[in-house]
Amino acid sequence: MKGHIMAEDLIGKTVAFLLTNGYEDSELTAPWGAVTDAGARAVLVAPEPGTVEGKKGHSQAVDQVVAEADTDAFDGLVLPGGVVNADHLRMDADAVAFARRFFEEHKPVGVICHGAWILVEADVVRDREITSYPSLRTDLRNAGANWVDEEVVVDNGLVSSRTPDDLPAFCAKVIEEIAEGEHPLQTV
Amino acid sequence: MKGHIMAEDLIGKTVAFLLTNGYEDSELTAPWGAVTDAGARAVLVAPEPGTVEGKKGHSQAVDQVVAEADTDAFDGLVLPGGVVNADHLRMDADAVAFARRFFEEHKPVGVICHGAWILVEADVVRDREITSYPSLRTDLRNAGANWVDEEVVVDNGLVSSRTPDDLPAFCAKVIEEIAEGEHPLQTV
Repeated sequence: MKGHIMAEDLIGKTVAFLLTNGYEDSELTAPWGAVTDAGARAVLVAPEPGTVEGKKGHSQAVDQVVAEADTDAFDGLVLPGGVVNADHLRMDADAVAFARRFFEEHKPVGVICHGAWILVEADVVRDREITSYPSLRTDLRNAGANWVDEEVVVDNGLVSSRTPDDLPAFCAKVIEEIAEGEHPLQTV
Repeated sequence: MKGHIMAEDLIGKTVAFLLTNGYEDSELTAPWGAVTDAGARAVLVAPEPGTVEGKKGHSQAVDQVVAEADTDAFDGLVLPGGVVNADHLRMDADAVAFARRFFEEHKPVGVICHGAWILVEADVVRDREITSYPSLRTDLRNAGANWVDEEVVVDNGLVSSRTPDDLPAFCAKVIEEIAEGEHPLQTV
């Protein structure tokens, strides 16, 4: 039973969710639920302490401030979208450096919707296959990525999707890639 | 008196404002007031007929649908910001083509804040000096622009600013460039 296997896939793993206010609510809550259901510990990392609030009103406590977060403690990263979240997060140098370190350490990263702007800022998408919300297509291509229009794209530990409609496929692949562990070709 | 000179500078000129919902209200209203005070006719061009609404609640009637707008009728273009406005507008092929034609026709363009994403999409910023809201810096550099952090940047008919705080300087330079007319180096 695939459901049963996935329910144990991430036991002992810790997954960082990096975001700030204005995220697309379901792009936090759905993958958060999926990785914790699969046995992982999920940790909300944000630029400021306190709580974050999504564009539709979901709010959640910040577990760690990104300037103090250490990627050694994490087995994978999820970057939710939301245009305001991503537009602000990419201006935070600590957040961009934190995301980049997952690539330096070959760890799986899941990114959806507008979240890919953080990867443009971190300069880690060159020659990688990726999808995103369609408005980012040109920014990702100009950053050197091979942008495609698919429900979910998996490229050596980098999982990407376009919109909340893609969340079921996205969550399944995020779990699969984090379960597999480090990917040597997931790099800067 | 500079005010008196500016009050006559744009008589007989027509200026297009290209935007959609979610614009930064003052980035429409301030340059609209400035160019009309200087004697120009201003025309609101948008992807859909009806009205547009800003992020802070300003609303205004759409004068022309962009798919039917002809750049021959205009002497200059203003692109207001607002992250949602710009994120949506860049996905409208007619809007991107309309903006690009001002460059093909060497006509002045004023762009502020997030508005520059439309120029990234139109691929008209290569080797041009420009500023923007800071989150667009990497996208503009990846599109080939020389991005700088200044209140207002004027490069051969292309006027750019960063935020609403820059509006007084922005409006003055937009009027100056449109008054000068076509700029041969404003090109694609």
